[in-house]
Amino acid sequence: MAERFDRIWHNARLATMRDGRVDLGEIEQGLIAARDGRIVYAGAQSDFPVDADAAERIDCAGRWITPGLVDCHTHLVYGGNRAHEFELRLKGASYEEIARAGGGIVSTVAATRKATEGELVAGALPRLDALIAEGATTVEIKSGYGLDAETEMRQLAAARSLGRVRQVAIRTSFLGAHALPPESDGDKDRYIDLICNQMLPAVAKAGLADAVDGFMEGIAFSGEQTARVFEAARALGLPVKLHADQLSNLGGATLAAKFSALSADHLEHTDESGAVAMAKAGTSAVLLPGAFYFIRETQKPPVELFRKHGVHMALATDCNPGSSPLTSLLLAMNMGATLFRMTVAECLAGVTREGARALGVLAETGTLEAGKWCDLAIWDIERPAELVYRIGFNPLHSRVWRAQ
Amino acid sequence: MAERFDRIWHNARLATMRDGRVDLGEIEQGLIAARDGRIVYAGAQSDFPVDADAAERIDCAGRWITPGLVDCHTHLVYGGNRAHEFELRLKGASYEEIARAGGGIVSTVAATRKATEGELVAGALPRLDALIAEGATTVEIKSGYGLDAETEMRQLAAARSLGRVRQVAIRTSFLGAHALPPESDGDKDRYIDLICNQMLPAVAKAGLADAVDGFMEGIAFSGEQTARVFEAARALGLPVKLHADQLSNLGGATLAAKFSALSADHLEHTDESGAVAMAKAGTSAVLLPGAFYFIRETQKPPVELFRKHGVHMALATDCNPGSSPLTSLLLAMNMGATLFRMTVAECLAGVTREGARALGVLAETGTLEAGKWCDLAIWDIERPAELVYRIGFNPLHSRVWRAQ
Repeated sequence: MAERFDRIWHNARLATMRDGRVDLGEIEQGLIAARDGRIVYAGAQSDFPVDADAAERIDCAGRWITPGLVDCHTHLVYGGNRAHEFELRLKGASYEEIARAGGGIVSTVAATRKATEGELVAGALPRLDALIAEGATTVEIKSGYGLDAETEMRQLAAARSLGRVRQVAIRTSFLGAHALPPESDGDKDRYIDLICNQMLPAVAKAGLADAVDGFMEGIAFSGEQTARVFEAARALGLPVKLHADQLSNLGGATLAAKFSALSADHLEHTDESGAVAMAKAGTSAVLLPGAFYFIRETQKPPVELFRKHGVHMALATDCNPGSSPLTSLLLAMNMGATLFRMTVAECLAGVTREGARALGVLAETGTLEAGKWCDLAIWDIERPAELVYRIGFNPLHSRVWRAQ
Repeated sequence: MAERFDRIWHNARLATMRDGRVDLGEIEQGLIAARDGRIVYAGAQSDFPVDADAAERIDCAGRWITPGLVDCHTHLVYGGNRAHEFELRLKGASYEEIARAGGGIVSTVAATRKATEGELVAGALPRLDALIAEGATTVEIKSGYGLDAETEMRQLAAARSLGRVRQVAIRTSFLGAHALPPESDGDKDRYIDLICNQMLPAVAKAGLADAVDGFMEGIAFSGEQTARVFEAARALGLPVKLHADQLSNLGGATLAAKFSALSADHLEHTDESGAVAMAKAGTSAVLLPGAFYFIRETQKPPVELFRKHGVHMALATDCNPGSSPLTSLLLAMNMGATLFRMTVAECLAGVTREGARALGVLAETGTLEAGKWCDLAIWDIERPAELVYRIGFNPLHSRVWRAQ
């Protein structure tokens, strides 16, 4: 008797993004079969039994299918709106004037602290929907605008809620070590104590975080302070990741590698020793060209070094109100290519396979392979390069989440 | 008896973009009333007769209304697809290798020559629809990928057709002087003769062009050759515009001003004398940050000089397959602000009032004023700055074309 499937997509072209390739793992006459939300077969149509039984068969009319997109670095949940600050800055306002007008990260922290969980969900939904409208099926969301236990946990709970109101997998990261809260009077060590001894254990106990993140930078936290947060995370069994080497080289990539971090993110100022350490540790590089563009950085991340040493490169939006109000993975790909000179294959892998790897969920999604969730993006394009090449155009035909 | 209107939008916030302001002409409690497709009233709700009679009243629930957007510089109609060329270049292919692989403008010319009018319309429609989905109501489209009379006229006819299959005003520009056709054996003067003596008169006779455009650059045509095209256009009563000073300063802005051009476009290398000449002639500057971004220019257009001398600045997508595959005026605004440091008011004016001025249609559209077409974009935003600040997010609530 023929094998039975829930759903089959046939007459498709596949960019499987299977590992170990510099190309896209393309299959010109492809077929995907799913059962119980998972891919059972993704490959050549000719190798699939013609008598297979399926509850539904979808003719893709030659369209391209990629894995559902993965945005592995966002700050999607926050209160308030920083458009006015942007407006003032373009008029020539100084940072001091903007701070006086209520701008800067402090304004986002204040607005986030004031917001209820429902308000945080409602505010984030249009941003999440913009990602979903381009085929995103997995989105990481960080806390980091509460900077106190209660608000950080409310942010993370709002992120989890988003995964219930939309058909999308949400991965959360606790980013208490994002900035120093205004009430800390400049005492970073005491705030790190608070994170390690109170906030992080509470977050872990509530099961609100899939990972622990930090911001290691002159304007944020030192390597020693970051290491303390990472030690505390390790003691609780939580994986770590890091905003590293964005504005200066403080050895963030090396520190992240030392703790076998899932990823080190930004990395504009990472040097070769950092890249080597990341490669050895299997720590992914998450590149964020939206922030590079928006804050008009000139120092590019060392893409050549990452290639040379085999560091996996993911791409993400870094969606946040201060330095990257970007809600498009298609644009993140175009910027990765245009600004960082990543290839089309690297960009597409960056928002699929490598995004999944950077979140530690590559076994579940990120490529078209049997056993993974059937998360698909189906595109009205002639070739995958169009997804990277075009600017401000969304050719998504349909999106499939867990075979639905 | 109360005056009668076809349709009233009330409870709205208006960014009227009325001339002579550095702000947006904002009205917090605003109302727009239309009759026969035109705005009869746009102003404070409190100054509008409460007993006015209207066939339909639309409660805007506090949403913002701007004029429908104007994209005053596009090459929307063309054959083929250059995504593969982009892919090759990112892999390190040289221009020669790309040319051998069938890339470059020559490939677009070949594909455009092969395409029927219907194919050109079908190819351009998704691009036009992307602009429309963001509230565009007026779009300029150039020829310039035919480089022979027949194909140039077919491109312009396709552009006119687009204005019949969609509710949008199309303005056409004849850009025969875009590049030298491959069959010309390097003889630019002979091709300019062909344009002046045959192509342009045929285009004018058929009523296919609203303006005549040229590309004055080392890699294109000289000032002397451009002037000959402009003389011929003047003799036929057609206004002119120019791709000027994009890659070098050949005095394109000054030449455009000398011919009282509607606009000079690109202008990265324009100097103060060019800006002064443009101001005196009333020639608009059309800035194209998408091309600047995509080809990784570093020389910015002299925005400060344009401000100093009162040159009107428009913003446009320059949508084209080679140097700006951009189909978003929202992104063009963000790039105008981020890359060129234009203010929010300048960016919004650039895609409304100044876009209309650059096309010579300011009497008809581009601001919210009585007598103009009722072309509106209605936005789900808290303040207009959001339209410029956000990246890859479309908050359009609805679009109104000629009061419908």
